[in-house]
Amino acid sequence: MTLMKSWIESANAPDGEFPLNNLPYGVFSTEGTEPRCGGAIGDMIVDLTALEEEGILTATDDPVLDVPFWNDFMELGPEVWDAYRAKLQTLLADGTDRVAEPYLVPIAEAQMHLPFLVSEYTDFYAGRHHAENVGTMFRGKENALPPNWLSIPIGYNGRASSVVVSGTPVRRPWGQVKGPDDDLPRFAPSARFDIELELGAVVGLPSEGPVTVAEADRMIFGYVLLNDWSARDIQAWEYQPLGPFQAKATATTISAWIVTRAALEPFRVTTPDRTRPLLPYLTEPGPMLYDIDLAVTLAPEGKTPTTIARTNYREMYYSAAQQLAHHTTSGCPMNTGDLLGSGTISGPTKESRGSLLELSWGGKEPVSLETGGTRSFIEDGDTLTLTGHAQGDGYRIGFGRCEGQLLPALKDPFARS
Amino acid sequence: MTLMKSWIESANAPDGEFPLNNLPYGVFSTEGTEPRCGGAIGDMIVDLTALEEEGILTATDDPVLDVPFWNDFMELGPEVWDAYRAKLQTLLADGTDRVAEPYLVPIAEAQMHLPFLVSEYTDFYAGRHHAENVGTMFRGKENALPPNWLSIPIGYNGRASSVVVSGTPVRRPWGQVKGPDDDLPRFAPSARFDIELELGAVVGLPSEGPVTVAEADRMIFGYVLLNDWSARDIQAWEYQPLGPFQAKATATTISAWIVTRAALEPFRVTTPDRTRPLLPYLTEPGPMLYDIDLAVTLAPEGKTPTTIARTNYREMYYSAAQQLAHHTTSGCPMNTGDLLGSGTISGPTKESRGSLLELSWGGKEPVSLETGGTRSFIEDGDTLTLTGHAQGDGYRIGFGRCEGQLLPALKDPFARS
Repeated sequence: MTLMKSWIESANAPDGEFPLNNLPYGVFSTEGTEPRCGGAIGDMIVDLTALEEEGILTATDDPVLDVPFWNDFMELGPEVWDAYRAKLQTLLADGTDRVAEPYLVPIAEAQMHLPFLVSEYTDFYAGRHHAENVGTMFRGKENALPPNWLSIPIGYNGRASSVVVSGTPVRRPWGQVKGPDDDLPRFAPSARFDIELELGAVVGLPSEGPVTVAEADRMIFGYVLLNDWSARDIQAWEYQPLGPFQAKATATTISAWIVTRAALEPFRVTTPDRTRPLLPYLTEPGPMLYDIDLAVTLAPEGKTPTTIARTNYREMYYSAAQQLAHHTTSGCPMNTGDLLGSGTISGPTKESRGSLLELSWGGKEPVSLETGGTRSFIEDGDTLTLTGHAQGDGYRIGFGRCEGQLLPALKDPFARS
Repeated sequence: MTLMKSWIESANAPDGEFPLNNLPYGVFSTEGTEPRCGGAIGDMIVDLTALEEEGILTATDDPVLDVPFWNDFMELGPEVWDAYRAKLQTLLADGTDRVAEPYLVPIAEAQMHLPFLVSEYTDFYAGRHHAENVGTMFRGKENALPPNWLSIPIGYNGRASSVVVSGTPVRRPWGQVKGPDDDLPRFAPSARFDIELELGAVVGLPSEGPVTVAEADRMIFGYVLLNDWSARDIQAWEYQPLGPFQAKATATTISAWIVTRAALEPFRVTTPDRTRPLLPYLTEPGPMLYDIDLAVTLAPEGKTPTTIARTNYREMYYSAAQQLAHHTTSGCPMNTGDLLGSGTISGPTKESRGSLLELSWGGKEPVSLETGGTRSFIEDGDTLTLTGHAQGDGYRIGFGRCEGQLLPALKDPFARS
C-alpha cells in the first residue's frame, strides 16, 4: 500500500498524520457552532454531518451523523463502515470534483469533543513487559507474572464516566493512602500520580453471547490512544482483594480521532510466541496486533517537552480481539460504544516503558528531563502527551494527540464553589 | 408512623408489600401496550405516565414520565421527588376523589421491565460477616479481613449491561476454570454458580467532585433488591490481581420496583460500632442503614421453595451513602442511573448467610431442601428468589421479588442460532 493522493494538498505530506489512507472520525465544533461529526484529512476536517444533510455522502437511508457522536453510525456494521469509507475516499481523491471543498474546516480552528458515547469501559493488563516490570517491583522477579496471566487476558471494569477527550485538564485527586510504615491511612492528595500509555479499542457492534476472536475482530470499529491516569499510592492501598477502583477513576484521556480498523489493515502483525498454549477460544485466526509506533512526552509548565518513552503496540501479548472475545465468555453483553483499554504498552528496554512507575522504577531512578530536573511521578502543571502512528510506504496513519495537563489538587475537595 | 389508608382496599392489608406508605416506582406494560412508568399500590399499578399525560399528576412543567424509565424524573432532585410523592399519596389516600381509578392496572396482568437505565454499576464488599466468612475460607481466620477492609468500603466496577429485571432467566455461563490440582485451566460451564443477596442503591443525582456522606445520601433516589450472580470457580482463577471480571458479568438481577428513600425514612438505623476509627470523610451525620428483613428461597424445578437464608440490611458495616461518598473521592463523576450493590448481606449466624458459598461453607456442608435433596451451589432449573421488607406499625414497606431461574449452559457457546 502506498500513499493515496488527495486534492487536499496537506494530506499528501509523507509525514502527515491524516492522509487519505487514514480518514479517522471525530466530533468537532467551531466558534458558535454545535458539535458535529467530521473526518480528518491533512490539516482539515471534512464536515460529514453537513455532507449527510446535503445528501452528498450518506451511510444509509436514515441520517446517522445528525448527532454529535459516532455511535449511530457504528451500529450499522462493517459492511456499511467499509462502503461509506470507500465513498468518502473517492470524494476526496486527487482528480475528483471538489464538491466537498465548501465543507472543509481547518483543524486549527476546531474544538474537539469525545468522538463517541462511551457505554462501558474495560481496562486490560495484557502487556507482558509491563506486567513483569510491575510484578517484579511488587512481588519479586520469581512471582512477577500472576499464575493466570499466560492463560487469561486479565481485565477489570473501569469507569466510563471518567473518559475525557484529549486536551481536557486533569485534577490531581485526593484519596486514601497509607505508607508502608504508617499504622493508619490518611486522606490526602495523591503523591504518586502517573500515566499509562495504552491503545483503546472502540466496540462498534454489540454481542449477546460468547463470540470467537474472528467475530470479535469484526465488532471493533477502530482504535484511539488512551492514557489511563493512575494514582499509584491510592491503588497500592485499595486494590486488594477486588482490584483498582478510585486509583483509576479520576480521568481516562482518549485521543479525539477514531482511527478505523480499515485504515490499520496493512499494519497487522502477529502476537508473540506463546509461553503456554492458549485455550482454543482465544486462538487467533490471523494477525490481530498492529505495528504502531508510540511515544510519550512530558512538558513541565511553560517548558518544552521531553520524550520519556518510545514503544510499539506490537509488544502486546493479547490483542483487542482476544480481549473482546474473552470479555464475552460469560455471556456478558457487549454494546456499541464500549471502550477496551489494551493495558500499558511497555517494550523490553528501559526507554520503552509506558508508565512513570516503570520508567523511574517506583521512584528509585528518576527520569531526567531535557529542560532540567527529573521526574519520578507527575508534578503539578506537567503536560503529558501520547502520540502514535503506523508507518506505511511514503505515508503514515497517525492518531493525533492524547494530551492532558495535571492541575494541582483542590485545597478542600468538599468545598462547593 | 402507622398505616396510611388508601381507597384502594388491597393497599390496607397489614402484611401487604405496597401500602400507601410505600409507593415504589417501576416500569410496566400490559398485553399490546408499550412499557410505561407506574407506581405499585396494593395489588394494583397506577399508570403514572397516563396521569402525567392527562395533567392529573405532574412532576414539573415538562413531561418526564413519557419514557419507559425513571431517569428523567430522578434528574429533577429530592425536592421534586418529595413534592411528587406527597401529591401522589394525597391522590390515593382514603377519602380522596377516585380520579385515578381509571388508571389502575392489576399487577397480576402486568409485565415488568427494568425501572431505570443503568448508567454504570458498582458492587461493594461492605458486609463484615460475609467478608469474614469468605476470608476465613480462602485465607484462614487470622487473615480473614484484608488490611484495608476496616478503613475503605471496598468496591469494584461491575458491568451495567449485565443488569436484568426480576423474572429474567439466567443462563449458566462458560468460563476459564482451573481446579487446585490441575496444571492448566479448562474452558467449561461453571460448576459453582451462586447467588449474592444484596441491596442496590439507585443514584438519582449526579456529582462532579467529591461529596460528603450527607450529600451522598441526598443523591440516592431509592433501593432495589439485587442478586449478584457469581461463578465461584471462574472467580477463583481470574480474580488475582485485578478483581472479579467474567465471574460477575453473566447477570445481575434487580427487583422491578424502586423503593424510594422517602418510604424507608422511618426505618433508619445506625451502622455497627467501628473497630477502627473511620477517616472524617466517611463520618455519618446520622443513621444511614435501614432495618430491612431479607430472605432467600430456592425452588428446584417444579418444586416448592425452601427458605435458605434470612438476614437484615442493618448487618452492613458501611452504608450506601458512605459507599457513594467514597466513590467520588477521586473526582469520579457519578451519574443519574448509577447502581451501587451493597455487597453480600450476611448476618452472624449460619442461617443468615447471603450466599450458597457461605451457607454450604464452600460445598463442605450442603444445604438441605424441604422438598428433598441438598445444594452446595445452584443446579440447573433452580429458581432463586430474594424478598425483603421493612416492618412498620401495622404496615410493611416491601420490595417485591428479585427472582431468576438458572437455565442449563449452552452445549456449544459459540454456535449461532
